[in-house]
Amino acid sequence: MTDALSNGAVANLARKAKQAGRRLANAPSAAKDSVLTRVAEALRREAAAILKANAEDVAAAREAVARGEMTRALFDRLVLTPERLEGMVRGVTSVRDLPDPAHRVIERTQIAEGLELRKVSCPLGLLAVIFESRPDAVTQIAALAIKSGNAVILKGGREVEHTTAALVAGIHRALAETEEIPAEAVTAIYGRKAVAELLALDGVVDLIIPRGSNALVQYVQQNTRIPVLGHGDGVCHIYVDFAADQNMALRIILDAKTQYPAACNTVETVLVHSSIASEFLPRLASLMIEHKVQLRGCARTRESLPGLNLAEVASDEWHTEYSDLVLAIRVVDSLDAALEHIEQYGSHHTDAIVTEDADAAKRFLREVDSAGVYHNASTRFADGYRYGFGAEVGIGTNRMLARGPVGLEGLVTFKYELLGSGQTVSEFSGEDAKPFVHRKLPLP
Amino acid sequence: MTDALSNGAVANLARKAKQAGRRLANAPSAAKDSVLTRVAEALRREAAAILKANAEDVAAAREAVARGEMTRALFDRLVLTPERLEGMVRGVTSVRDLPDPAHRVIERTQIAEGLELRKVSCPLGLLAVIFESRPDAVTQIAALAIKSGNAVILKGGREVEHTTAALVAGIHRALAETEEIPAEAVTAIYGRKAVAELLALDGVVDLIIPRGSNALVQYVQQNTRIPVLGHGDGVCHIYVDFAADQNMALRIILDAKTQYPAACNTVETVLVHSSIASEFLPRLASLMIEHKVQLRGCARTRESLPGLNLAEVASDEWHTEYSDLVLAIRVVDSLDAALEHIEQYGSHHTDAIVTEDADAAKRFLREVDSAGVYHNASTRFADGYRYGFGAEVGIGTNRMLARGPVGLEGLVTFKYELLGSGQTVSEFSGEDAKPFVHRKLPLP
Repeated sequence: MTDALSNGAVANLARKAKQAGRRLANAPSAAKDSVLTRVAEALRREAAAILKANAEDVAAAREAVARGEMTRALFDRLVLTPERLEGMVRGVTSVRDLPDPAHRVIERTQIAEGLELRKVSCPLGLLAVIFESRPDAVTQIAALAIKSGNAVILKGGREVEHTTAALVAGIHRALAETEEIPAEAVTAIYGRKAVAELLALDGVVDLIIPRGSNALVQYVQQNTRIPVLGHGDGVCHIYVDFAADQNMALRIILDAKTQYPAACNTVETVLVHSSIASEFLPRLASLMIEHKVQLRGCARTRESLPGLNLAEVASDEWHTEYSDLVLAIRVVDSLDAALEHIEQYGSHHTDAIVTEDADAAKRFLREVDSAGVYHNASTRFADGYRYGFGAEVGIGTNRMLARGPVGLEGLVTFKYELLGSGQTVSEFSGEDAKPFVHRKLPLP
Repeated sequence: MTDALSNGAVANLARKAKQAGRRLANAPSAAKDSVLTRVAEALRREAAAILKANAEDVAAAREAVARGEMTRALFDRLVLTPERLEGMVRGVTSVRDLPDPAHRVIERTQIAEGLELRKVSCPLGLLAVIFESRPDAVTQIAALAIKSGNAVILKGGREVEHTTAALVAGIHRALAETEEIPAEAVTAIYGRKAVAELLALDGVVDLIIPRGSNALVQYVQQNTRIPVLGHGDGVCHIYVDFAADQNMALRIILDAKTQYPAACNTVETVLVHSSIASEFLPRLASLMIEHKVQLRGCARTRESLPGLNLAEVASDEWHTEYSDLVLAIRVVDSLDAALEHIEQYGSHHTDAIVTEDADAAKRFLREVDSAGVYHNASTRFADGYRYGFGAEVGIGTNRMLARGPVGLEGLVTFKYELLGSGQTVSEFSGEDAKPFVHRKLPLP
């Protein structure tokens, strides 16, 4: 099962998946939902076999950790337990219970007497997802693909090959129980050579989604003509305005830096207005040091924190995604300087302002050109589940490409504005987590 | 003005345009509208200079026609008259009068107490448009760009360089009259080398729109990492079902083939259900021959029209966009066979079914994976103006890329369904043109 595939094998699988995808695309909502119910049942039924397969991966991974070839964090992510598997099954049923996004009429226009134009949603076709070591990615992606009517090719990391194969086998048995959706609609491929072959399948694969390190995303982006959903870097900023509630700013920065430092929506650089620097920086520094965050700063930051002997951030270092307990700090003289810094060094992922000044917030939300622009909330909220999408396949920093004749509407993309009052992701995590509401509001 | 630019000059202009675009993106609607009013005034005021510049291009083009290096059709398109210029000016003011597509709240969700998520539209950034010889492209594209808040780089064909420069000079003088939008937001570049430099500017240019021949579109697609809005081929189909109103089918095919044969939304292949072939094909053939359309067919079509000695369509010829008064005909035994043909040979642009059978129409609209899927209407309707978008920058056959966290909604694209009762574009053209209604209808 985990042998490298022979030449052309991926292309063959992809063509079959594409054909299966056409059936899936046209399947009624009820058929897709019933398949997802069967997938959940199959995963529960086959739990023992899946956990056994995972144990093989875990054994190999344990040796890799012992040899120093795998981090403990990576190891922890690939271990399945009955509880984690049950969480994955619940993920499948919660995707099933979302509304069907396909075949919806988005807009209707009467063009002339007896002539009506309808803009209707429809699946993309064939997705390919390359992910690293998380078994939960398999079931989450498969569920999102089936629900949205897209076929999918899954390529998991070598470290979870046995687990992936066991999960996909379960999904296949569930698909085989139905007539409407061919099992080939969900296909796994293995081996590094398969990735190279996959990247060459433009015209067959419609969207490729690399989930993993920056190196993986960049490798994919540079080696394919298939549209890529993903983001190379997540260099997120928090700007602490002179009119900030400083306690709120500290709470938000602590959450955005330490709640899960390896995530792409973690803050990397804090910009502080010069008029509050002498008061705010010592408080920020002592909080960060207390939480084992290593600080780096611009010349003025270092001057404001003379006792700490901070490393100076070199000018091209402001582009860095540390993905670790490291925080860069820069003092700026104005909102404009903050906007300028974010434009120059940011990655158009997610950036936040902390301020009580509504005008400053409005300018920041409007002028920062990122997929997420936040007021008084932690950048860690940039996540499909927290946004109320049920789950996510990835986070895009691309702009939209329109389809059909493109007028004004096709020349704009969108961004997400998050308007908070100091919320942190920590409050919504763990045992005493506050609940999400996810209530649609009327448009203004 | 039309000298080739020195190395790096395009990159410089593009960076300035991008910066100007940031101002434009944040300009209020009223400022953008007032700029468009000034552009219209400037073009009227400078009409004499523009027509004089055009006369230079026309003189050169006349010689090219005499040398057989330019077609008469191309020549006709580049000639400006006072009437055509006035039409272009009216185009600018009609784009001005459309609603602003940017900074609209598309969706609002309450995430938690005091935490609101807004999906808001925003401009793409910097567009680059490469077009051939139509002077009206300059003003139409500039107006769409300004209205949508995007900066734009214009690269027109060599044959209209003087005209383009005069038009852009007028637009620049209009922009210079305002404080809010820097003139660099609309920039023209000249020379073939400039295109190569432009295509390398990924990260600066956000979307590139080639308007012209397939060769141009393919050259651009193969030589840039910038997202491309466009379509290589427009191989459009009309399927005449056994339950078709045959008179309607003839009217629609005549319009779709002859109303403007060089357009991308012209029909190239007609698929005819075998049960009506013996009755329908002779009628279709005589109508086409009467309108000087050269016919080509599959073996069964040739058998059904024995007297005509039709050329046989080779199997890979079904991919051909003739862009001329040439029509390929194929007899198929079922709706499934028609769907199969369109999937195999189509270009996902626009395809139509003619039938009185609602179920067949429903399947066709759902299962054909094209940007436009039509029932009982001519493929020639695939056009931004006819769809009610005011104008268009191009027609995309790409699928959408989503931004921010991507859940189910980001895994679907859309298509346009057009539901007609025999409408042809001819009825909406010329002196006695029926009016378009373009009335938004409530969603079902």
